Amino acid sequence: MSIRKNCERPARRIGANARTFSAARTAILYARALPLHIRKDIFRSDCKMDMPPSPAMSSGPVWEYLRRLLEETSGISDGKVADYIPELAKADPEDFAIAIATVDGTVYSAGCDEREFTIQSVSKPFLFAHAIETHGIGAVLRKVGVEPTGDPFNSIVLDDLNNRPFNPMVNAGAIAMAEMLAARTPDARQAELLEMFGKFAGRGLGIDEAVYRSESETGHRNRAIAYMMLNSGMIDGPPEEVLDIYFRQCSVGVTTRDLAVMASTLAAHGRNPVTGARVLAPDTVRDVLSVMATCGMYDYAGQWMFDVGLPAKSGVSGAIIAVLPGQLGIAVYSPRLDSVGNSIRGVEVCKRLARDFSLHAYIDRSDTRGVVRRRYRGDEVRSNRVRSRRELDALSERGREIVVIEAQGPLFFGSAERLIRKTAAFAQDARVAIVDFRRVAYVDGAATTLLGELVLDLARRGCRVVFTDVKGNANLAGFETALADKLETDQCELESDIDRALEAAEDAILAEAGQAGPRERLALAELELFQGLGKEDLAALEGSISSYQFDSGETILRAGDDAQLIFIVARGSVSILVGSDTATGRRVASVGPGQSFGEMALLDGGKRSADVRADTPVLAYGIAVEELRRLFDARPQILTTIYANIIRSISSRLRNANDHLRALQ
Amino acid sequence: MSIRKNCERPARRIGANARTFSAARTAILYARALPLHIRKDIFRSDCKMDMPPSPAMSSGPVWEYLRRLLEETSGISDGKVADYIPELAKADPEDFAIAIATVDGTVYSAGCDEREFTIQSVSKPFLFAHAIETHGIGAVLRKVGVEPTGDPFNSIVLDDLNNRPFNPMVNAGAIAMAEMLAARTPDARQAELLEMFGKFAGRGLGIDEAVYRSESETGHRNRAIAYMMLNSGMIDGPPEEVLDIYFRQCSVGVTTRDLAVMASTLAAHGRNPVTGARVLAPDTVRDVLSVMATCGMYDYAGQWMFDVGLPAKSGVSGAIIAVLPGQLGIAVYSPRLDSVGNSIRGVEVCKRLARDFSLHAYIDRSDTRGVVRRRYRGDEVRSNRVRSRRELDALSERGREIVVIEAQGPLFFGSAERLIRKTAAFAQDARVAIVDFRRVAYVDGAATTLLGELVLDLARRGCRVVFTDVKGNANLAGFETALADKLETDQCELESDIDRALEAAEDAILAEAGQAGPRERLALAELELFQGLGKEDLAALEGSISSYQFDSGETILRAGDDAQLIFIVARGSVSILVGSDTATGRRVASVGPGQSFGEMALLDGGKRSADVRADTPVLAYGIAVEELRRLFDARPQILTTIYANIIRSISSRLRNANDHLRALQ
Repeated sequence: MSIRKNCERPARRIGANARTFSAARTAILYARALPLHIRKDIFRSDCKMDMPPSPAMSSGPVWEYLRRLLEETSGISDGKVADYIPELAKADPEDFAIAIATVDGTVYSAGCDEREFTIQSVSKPFLFAHAIETHGIGAVLRKVGVEPTGDPFNSIVLDDLNNRPFNPMVNAGAIAMAEMLAARTPDARQAELLEMFGKFAGRGLGIDEAVYRSESETGHRNRAIAYMMLNSGMIDGPPEEVLDIYFRQCSVGVTTRDLAVMASTLAAHGRNPVTGARVLAPDTVRDVLSVMATCGMYDYAGQWMFDVGLPAKSGVSGAIIAVLPGQLGIAVYSPRLDSVGNSIRGVEVCKRLARDFSLHAYIDRSDTRGVVRRRYRGDEVRSNRVRSRRELDALSERGREIVVIEAQGPLFFGSAERLIRKTAAFAQDARVAIVDFRRVAYVDGAATTLLGELVLDLARRGCRVVFTDVKGNANLAGFETALADKLETDQCELESDIDRALEAAEDAILAEAGQAGPRERLALAELELFQGLGKEDLAALEGSISSYQFDSGETILRAGDDAQLIFIVARGSVSILVGSDTATGRRVASVGPGQSFGEMALLDGGKRSADVRADTPVLAYGIAVEELRRLFDARPQILTTIYANIIRSISSRLRNANDHLRALQ
Repeated sequence: MSIRKNCERPARRIGANARTFSAARTAILYARALPLHIRKDIFRSDCKMDMPPSPAMSSGPVWEYLRRLLEETSGISDGKVADYIPELAKADPEDFAIAIATVDGTVYSAGCDEREFTIQSVSKPFLFAHAIETHGIGAVLRKVGVEPTGDPFNSIVLDDLNNRPFNPMVNAGAIAMAEMLAARTPDARQAELLEMFGKFAGRGLGIDEAVYRSESETGHRNRAIAYMMLNSGMIDGPPEEVLDIYFRQCSVGVTTRDLAVMASTLAAHGRNPVTGARVLAPDTVRDVLSVMATCGMYDYAGQWMFDVGLPAKSGVSGAIIAVLPGQLGIAVYSPRLDSVGNSIRGVEVCKRLARDFSLHAYIDRSDTRGVVRRRYRGDEVRSNRVRSRRELDALSERGREIVVIEAQGPLFFGSAERLIRKTAAFAQDARVAIVDFRRVAYVDGAATTLLGELVLDLARRGCRVVFTDVKGNANLAGFETALADKLETDQCELESDIDRALEAAEDAILAEAGQAGPRERLALAELELFQGLGKEDLAALEGSISSYQFDSGETILRAGDDAQLIFIVARGSVSILVGSDTATGRRVASVGPGQSFGEMALLDGGKRSADVRADTPVLAYGIAVEELRRLFDARPQILTTIYANIIRSISSRLRNANDHLRALQ
């Protein structure tokens, strides 16, 4: 296999011949040597193609694909290694590595993925980003434009109109960005530089001294650029100082895996997906990607956008990074370059990746059509509150005044526009519109604006909007804040979840319908559990009933306990909770006055199957199961009637659960 | 309000002064007049800012926003109307309209949104698209490049290397595209042109004769370009014929609303969202958007990508279109241009829209993190098949060998990579991995490849993959086809829905566990409904039982019917279905040998609450409720025991429904 062959040579050691410069190119040596912070063993890693280190994936379809891609493209031997700096010319033309890093921090790589090389121009977008974060985009745009130039990357031409370099991806622009490092001394600048790169790469990086010296000793054209910029006032400091940091920036040692992680930090909108640290603000990332898209591939921008379609940056050491926002960062390393200075295998690999995996940035993946997951009315799905038959009848009749819209996915302009349009149409005759946000990933500024307008629009039509699952969701904190003034004016409300929102809306409808909720104390004959029992039966039961009081929040029953009592709520409300923990458990039913819970105690050897918690101060009647059984011989119809009532109640809950399940399809 | 003022002038009529050319510019007149197909009343519409026609939205937040934006930017009066063609110079500089069309066919517009003007260079991306669809991208790229040029749009320079125009957005490239129309005669070409534009706009369009003549009579520079292209062999036909169709193409009359719909057709990946017709293949759209991104805004490409970030095209009549893939098409019309030829208000409106609604193309909205909606094992959630206690015990123990992964959203590289990685990890020790595709919007080629690899990977580890909800979903037809060979080798299966997939997986596990399914005929004492009854009770029951046979697919019970019998399945299997229609209704339970259905008949006045359908040939016992009641006096324990068994059975179903609900959170 050709790749293995490529990599089975001894690791290239730089130290031995690092200072063997050609006489012609060492003619100019600058006396003022700046302190250097050089890592001892910068090219420390040998080729380990078959053993990618953790946390890399060393198996699976993507890894297999990358191996195959590497093998298939390693036959390409066109182009030549950059030789304008003697040190670069020493690169092995057969070196070849591909790495992909996803936005959740998985790195796939193949080839010499741990071999170090110097970052060169791939450093430029990161310096641009750093300048924006340090000084703000306004200050940066006074120093550099964002327009592509037809001229080569080392062009000396400045933009006529603004007298600034065309963009930060040409050398002149990059030198202007290097001067914008915050630190003032050479040492501090280098430290700032390395710290910045380290945050992107997720590990400490160093400078390759040999390459740095070679750059510094032979960078005459860059000197010309710097002096011209000094002449035109675009840099302020002594050119040699600015150039020194620029040469160091180009000489930072990185691996292909490092570059993939750096690119994935841009793909993840500025959060390093491996370390989890936020490195850039999302707005900065957008600005950087925009410039990479038009200026990142030298004169190849249009064809690149056409063939690959990803914001990218290449460098003369043979590296290319490409970014698919929201998905992944790609890095390729192969030193042989084409005539405009891009890695030939690198371009081919990116083309193949883009084609095989449909990675083009202009393929949309946003799926706005799914934003309304489901919608239903309050007469189709009810809350888990156990209701009396009269209440159920009232809700069948007027439940249509409640509408529920389940939103899902990320809310941005396209999805939010659809959501508010569909909501407004569905809520045409409603009094309450509940927008279920449980499945909303995030709400951007545009969506916040549109949702705010929806609240106002429905308020004018006499319909309140209730959002669920917003509180306590960190991704929706900005949205909650933005709603604050609307919440104060009662135009909208927040509820913790859809069940509580539905229950509150139902209560409001029932109150209006004159079903103002049951009285505080109930006669036995009014209890649903005893419906159908005669007077004598009720009198016989009376003796087996005691009353119990519970505080709000108190756990009344616990799953797994022995079941000896059936309870009937006389006052207040309890929740039946399923789940490992009462605090987070899901409420499967809420039981109010006149309704029972814990009926399973009637069955032999019954254990409690759920937790029951008091939502308010609760007064309940408890009936000992033993005593009910004792009554059986004399009055069997008591038990059969109660059983039948229990069957009705559980069946009703089962129907409600099935309605819910159907609604969730 | 300034906009209203702008629009409250009489509609501009073209006919009257259409031929008033200046003497100097009419010097060259071409003898060979081609037949013209001119619509009589091309500028037929007056300004109707406050009354957008259907299907436009004339209310709601987006409409309000556009009105406000129009008002706020109508104060801008910099720039001047194009005058290189006399007819264009007649445009009212105060004309101003903004329109947005979403990918689901909603059009919002403000200003003179129905005033017609000529399309000019905004025609270019559509001709480029048409050439790709007609001849294939390979043939098109032999005639035109995709590289931006620093030169003006009417540059005569060709690409040195390939001797072709730089890109299809400069005049030279557009002329080459015009020559690629399929038709051979001038008449047929014009018809082809108008039909093509009509498909994008969703209505019949015509050519503005006055502008066309003006273009034709004064387009000397374009003549120079055409002759130079003839000289270099890039066009074959007589230049005047090619130019004639090019001038016609530029003179097609459109409204701002038309342009928004045309742009939204690109946003919707080639499907016109208003008419629903497929106009372009998605690959063509990707190619067109790529070129618009780098070449669409003349020399302003980099700054445009930076400020707006959307593929766009402008024209000298003062129109700009911009495309946000997957979301919307934008069109602005305002004739005053800046120095490079872009509408000044148009650029400002696009900048504001992009900023206010976060529309930049490099803001990712794909949300790959949500692709695994939920995952669970077969011991946590069971199928709706009603199981005996022994079976339930076996599933509690070995259900872990079944894993279910619910996928959601569109599956493309980033989301599919995450899905297969999470699935492979979760299925580590599983025998069956069910991938629930109910919520999958589409599966692209990259995702298909990755899922195919997942099947192979798990098969090697002894785990079968089952996909649900693939069959019959038109969006997943390609995926189903791609799986075909894997289906044949038993490495993967398709099931209609998650419930059936779970049931089949449970059956396989139970068969292995020696629970090979119940025998074909059962004694009364073995039936769950009669558990706990003594011998004498069973003997007393015997007389009230008859047996019934049903064919596969036969409806046994219908919701709403009077309930008189309780059934117990002796052989075969029935489904309990909830929903308006038996064929499409959701299965809430499947009942097999030994289990009962229709128990609610025992309650007074019982009505059937669900449909029940035989899934196989079914033998069932039926017990008349009347006879059970008659036994009550002598043997009340028969009824209470049966009630208690019913309560257990329904409670178990309720728990299962609640488990499901919890799993669906």
